[in-house]
Amino acid sequence: MDTIFHIERPDEGLKEALQTKIDNLTKPKGSLGRLESLALQAGLIQQSLSPVLRHPINVIFASDHGIADEGVSQSPKEVTRQVIYNFLNGGAGVCFLARQHGFELRIVDGGVDYDFPSTPKLIDRKIRKGTRDFLYEAAMTQEEMEKAIRYGAEIVSECHASGCNVISFGEMGVGNTAASSMWMTCLTRIPLIDCVGAGSGLNAEGVRHKYDVLKRALENYKGDGSTLDVMRYFGGYEMVMAVGGMLRAAESRMIILVDGFIMTNCVLAASRLYPEMLSYCVFGHRGDEAGHKRVLDFLGAKPLLDLGLRLGEGSGSICAYPILDSAIRMINEMHNFQQAAITKYF
Amino acid sequence: MDTIFHIERPDEGLKEALQTKIDNLTKPKGSLGRLESLALQAGLIQQSLSPVLRHPINVIFASDHGIADEGVSQSPKEVTRQVIYNFLNGGAGVCFLARQHGFELRIVDGGVDYDFPSTPKLIDRKIRKGTRDFLYEAAMTQEEMEKAIRYGAEIVSECHASGCNVISFGEMGVGNTAASSMWMTCLTRIPLIDCVGAGSGLNAEGVRHKYDVLKRALENYKGDGSTLDVMRYFGGYEMVMAVGGMLRAAESRMIILVDGFIMTNCVLAASRLYPEMLSYCVFGHRGDEAGHKRVLDFLGAKPLLDLGLRLGEGSGSICAYPILDSAIRMINEMHNFQQAAITKYF
Repeated sequence: MDTIFHIERPDEGLKEALQTKIDNLTKPKGSLGRLESLALQAGLIQQSLSPVLRHPINVIFASDHGIADEGVSQSPKEVTRQVIYNFLNGGAGVCFLARQHGFELRIVDGGVDYDFPSTPKLIDRKIRKGTRDFLYEAAMTQEEMEKAIRYGAEIVSECHASGCNVISFGEMGVGNTAASSMWMTCLTRIPLIDCVGAGSGLNAEGVRHKYDVLKRALENYKGDGSTLDVMRYFGGYEMVMAVGGMLRAAESRMIILVDGFIMTNCVLAASRLYPEMLSYCVFGHRGDEAGHKRVLDFLGAKPLLDLGLRLGEGSGSICAYPILDSAIRMINEMHNFQQAAITKYF
Repeated sequence: MDTIFHIERPDEGLKEALQTKIDNLTKPKGSLGRLESLALQAGLIQQSLSPVLRHPINVIFASDHGIADEGVSQSPKEVTRQVIYNFLNGGAGVCFLARQHGFELRIVDGGVDYDFPSTPKLIDRKIRKGTRDFLYEAAMTQEEMEKAIRYGAEIVSECHASGCNVISFGEMGVGNTAASSMWMTCLTRIPLIDCVGAGSGLNAEGVRHKYDVLKRALENYKGDGSTLDVMRYFGGYEMVMAVGGMLRAAESRMIILVDGFIMTNCVLAASRLYPEMLSYCVFGHRGDEAGHKRVLDFLGAKPLLDLGLRLGEGSGSICAYPILDSAIRMINEMHNFQQAAITKYF
């Protein structure tokens, strides 16, 4: 692809010093569980014994999908644009979570099938009014995909420039669990049937129809099966932008908070291109969408939360943020055995 | 017992209206998972369609245990008082979590084996300098137990009077996982072997010795097996105080955040006395202590978090607080389908 990323695994030279610092805090060794491994990861990413979190942002990429015309979603297509207004008005699920945890929201129109009146609150990166229907043809052209990767990366560069070092990605796009299932089955070789779920609320019959449509799409696909070709053929603009954004975030040594099923499949694609990006990911949540557990297992990811969420928008990753914040506070604020004059009990 | 509690299940009359409000928020039905069930629970407890959280407090009851003389803990007994100083100095694990989530900490000396210089930051309710060794005799007298229940209840009444409607309980007391295992096996009939774990960090040999000691204690016990007798014979003052505190909290219609293994066994004892108190409990965390999962299953409890914590102090319950807070914000702040002019998609 056009846009090249330079992503390196964090240097592990600091690992021993970080672990020693964590082990010397006033607690039985290991007794703060995941907080300890998160503090270690953040310290390595930032190459610091005192990592900090600055200016958290949740970027929501939104786009419509041609495949939605095949009736693969419970939600009518108009819901994509309606929910974007709900984001802008502060009434959506992600909005109260963002306010609670101090996240800035940036909403990006990557390809919604609607002419929004110009508003400074909505970032216009519309590539096209929705992708093409991948049952019959590639969802996007090579040029569109390159543009989407670049747009996603540029938006993250702007976040980074504004002081952000921890970023979450969310999405909105009726039909995007269908697109994600296609990425998942093609990139992991897990059978399609295990990659398809209810999305925003299909019943059993709806899931069966969705599976039938996707199965036909898979049969019709004649591409080379490479990561980029799979991304292009089945992807949504919002998903490809998220991949570009994640890669730029890893390149910029930011902590990436990973949301639900769709964003996990974006991590899957991004990590096929640049495996090192996984070192920067903190998986927030195991969602209720069938297949999410399988793709997480494939990635060796253990999300922090399991709360039965399946909303998307970055809701799961933002919900997990306070746990990351706790880890950072632990390593910076907790006293050690010497300061506290406590008999070291391990 | 002397102290009588009047605990009622929340009236369910408001349930339908609460569920309707939750279902009408702009999200696929059920897609906010546990946040939705928490909002329902909080609404019923407070008998309100707009529940609120006020002045969260984490009460830590601390005490020493006679059984610690049998070498059942990795930590020497002096650690109890050392850690209390760490609480007072703001350096302990629970301190950064309390600061993060806006919890007031109240530290209660229920029976630490140490003469603290008087300080307004430490609430003195010392019943005795530690319990007796239950390998040979009852840990406390009937009178001491009654006093501990009353003290615990009074402290919660003071919290309630200061505006608190959501309360977490933590503990500190070298030897109290051993005491908790005894409550658990006696009150659930789960075999002792499945109730005993590593506490603050015993190795396999240490756990075996702990089990042997507890097995002998169980054989020596000649009481009537009633909840109150088991509490008295094996309990710690801090544990009995927590039971009294939980019962008063339920009586006062406060939300009770439940921490790890020890506090879950306090809920177990409290709910044997007053089953209705369970309606007020939000289980925060499944800890790493062996047996915790079993006692949670016995209670039908599904904790919000599973982060491998085993620190106690209220760390697990405070970590879970932002999720409860999210649920409250959801029901109060999220727009409904009419406000947002979104096609209802279920």
